[in-house]
Amino acid sequence: MIVHSPAPLNAEPPLDRLRASFVTGQPDFYVRTHGEIPTLDAASHRLRVGGRVAQPLELSMQDLRTRFPRRSEMAVMQCAGNRRAELNQVRAVDGDPWAGGAIGNARWTGVALADVLRAAGAPDDPSLHVAFSCCDDVELPGEGRFRFGVSIPMAKAMAPEVLLAFAMNGADLAPEHGHPLRVVVPGYAGARSAKWLAAISVQEAPSDSPIQQHDYKLLPPDITSDSIDWSRGVTINDMPLNAAICDPAAEARVQAGPVALKGYAVAAGRGIARVDVSADGGRNWRQAELEHDPAAPWSWTFWQATLDLAAGEHELVVRAWDSAGQTQPARPDDVWNRKGYLSAAWHRVRVRAD
Amino acid sequence: MIVHSPAPLNAEPPLDRLRASFVTGQPDFYVRTHGEIPTLDAASHRLRVGGRVAQPLELSMQDLRTRFPRRSEMAVMQCAGNRRAELNQVRAVDGDPWAGGAIGNARWTGVALADVLRAAGAPDDPSLHVAFSCCDDVELPGEGRFRFGVSIPMAKAMAPEVLLAFAMNGADLAPEHGHPLRVVVPGYAGARSAKWLAAISVQEAPSDSPIQQHDYKLLPPDITSDSIDWSRGVTINDMPLNAAICDPAAEARVQAGPVALKGYAVAAGRGIARVDVSADGGRNWRQAELEHDPAAPWSWTFWQATLDLAAGEHELVVRAWDSAGQTQPARPDDVWNRKGYLSAAWHRVRVRAD
Repeated sequence: MIVHSPAPLNAEPPLDRLRASFVTGQPDFYVRTHGEIPTLDAASHRLRVGGRVAQPLELSMQDLRTRFPRRSEMAVMQCAGNRRAELNQVRAVDGDPWAGGAIGNARWTGVALADVLRAAGAPDDPSLHVAFSCCDDVELPGEGRFRFGVSIPMAKAMAPEVLLAFAMNGADLAPEHGHPLRVVVPGYAGARSAKWLAAISVQEAPSDSPIQQHDYKLLPPDITSDSIDWSRGVTINDMPLNAAICDPAAEARVQAGPVALKGYAVAAGRGIARVDVSADGGRNWRQAELEHDPAAPWSWTFWQATLDLAAGEHELVVRAWDSAGQTQPARPDDVWNRKGYLSAAWHRVRVRAD
Repeated sequence: MIVHSPAPLNAEPPLDRLRASFVTGQPDFYVRTHGEIPTLDAASHRLRVGGRVAQPLELSMQDLRTRFPRRSEMAVMQCAGNRRAELNQVRAVDGDPWAGGAIGNARWTGVALADVLRAAGAPDDPSLHVAFSCCDDVELPGEGRFRFGVSIPMAKAMAPEVLLAFAMNGADLAPEHGHPLRVVVPGYAGARSAKWLAAISVQEAPSDSPIQQHDYKLLPPDITSDSIDWSRGVTINDMPLNAAICDPAAEARVQAGPVALKGYAVAAGRGIARVDVSADGGRNWRQAELEHDPAAPWSWTFWQATLDLAAGEHELVVRAWDSAGQTQPARPDDVWNRKGYLSAAWHRVRVRAD
């Protein structure tokens, strides 16, 4: 793993390793933590469900496993800061300089959040919010020390794909992935998929945690200083269309002739309609072959293409198109923002063919 | 209206007129026809519903009005070729050179297509297609003469927003808008909202009409000649994120000082999260104010901003961001395709301030 920070632990796999398997193993799955990794005992852990519910609940892991139907969903998890490093090349941004590996695709198993909310008698009112409180202590500059918390809108919370997960690829969650219980919100930025989940609250406003109020917002490009008016930011939930070249690696030396390009593409809640690749910086394009599992709409699409490279320097590029005929902006400058989120311009990799 | 072709009639309103009202009046609504406008008698018109249904139906307009619950939906209709003129400036494309006016927002009234399909006992199988056959005769180069026909996937056909509409803004449909009955498929390209509807067929494959098979497909950029391999195209259904400056007009002369910019933005099935405007070709951006009706999720968003223009030439630009943090490509070249569809790059308008 490429470790951006040992404490809190933030690490991502090399891209060729990520692309080696459609389902990302736990050891290869990026780790994004905001504080120390809690050590929790599954036997004594309790989940409280409260707020605007008719029947507050306190549930053990055993309760969750036995009182609710088990559900599995194959889904991508990705950090809102995935590919942030490219924005740093435009102008400096905050946060760890993720390459394209702050993403993974796993089969998550647990129970539907909707089932738990219904058991607690939560009103199915789309104007409400479902807040998650967690066991990890977080420190943010200027915000002090607090427990991690976020929220999602009720309409998404009631969607069948949103899980309270206790397993990943058929095994218990590893400590760094939220053992014993985490939220999985397919399509949303990873920050909403709260780990080490302790409490759920149904409420009229979004979470008042600084993570929800002051972080994970898309700021307009004219905010460049440290003094940030957060009210001008848009809360990041659904993630945009994105694609990356995983192989060959940046600055790789390859043999001149046919070269295989491989990567991923993702379009939260939409399908990938087409993936274009270029060997000349985007002047000429060819279409990649797509590999997708139609039974797993929240998973990613793998793509591959073979391009004929003459000896010399080449700028390889990928861009994806979603099912609404929407495509990605060409340059990182087109999406630059102070916090370095949603870096989703064409992905470019320079290689040399000998 | 700006008439691109008198027969078949294809016309769009000037952009300032379009922007004058959040609900577009029938006389100001763009007209896209593929053949002669049929003259149909509402009293004798019949709609047949057949194919893979348990109970084929033949319905008069009176049957539709009395046997099904009435439904209204405010929704944008837009041509897949809206803003095509800008692609022509990159390399020549087929079709009428629409500016940004091949779009409108109306309150459509009729019955839910889903209710009619259920009355006919159509299986709710998402792999099926719902095909529409119409009364207008169409001629396409190399395809001969045939009745207009298209289809949509069953999953969309069963969505509550999809209507069989007999009224627009409270009045009967005008002849050019499909009198006495048309389909309205919010979010999809206008071509799927078939006018002068005569028959609905539930079937295993998409419509075999050339309009469905060989037209309204997004082709890859390397297809530049007249010999088109249609199998390489992607069927256009959902429309991409788009935005246009409606006022001031291109090449306008304005008074130096504060200048009001106005326009529309649209994101089929998603919300508009932010609209950025620039007076210097996209180097510096400001945010526009948004006007949207939260009770009408399929309608457009109006935006406005005031920019201070010094005397001289200015390139005004708009770009929108949707609720998934996705934005538009910068240049028409980034979205060029042979048929000139889905022209959704940043919209640029040159003006001179005196």
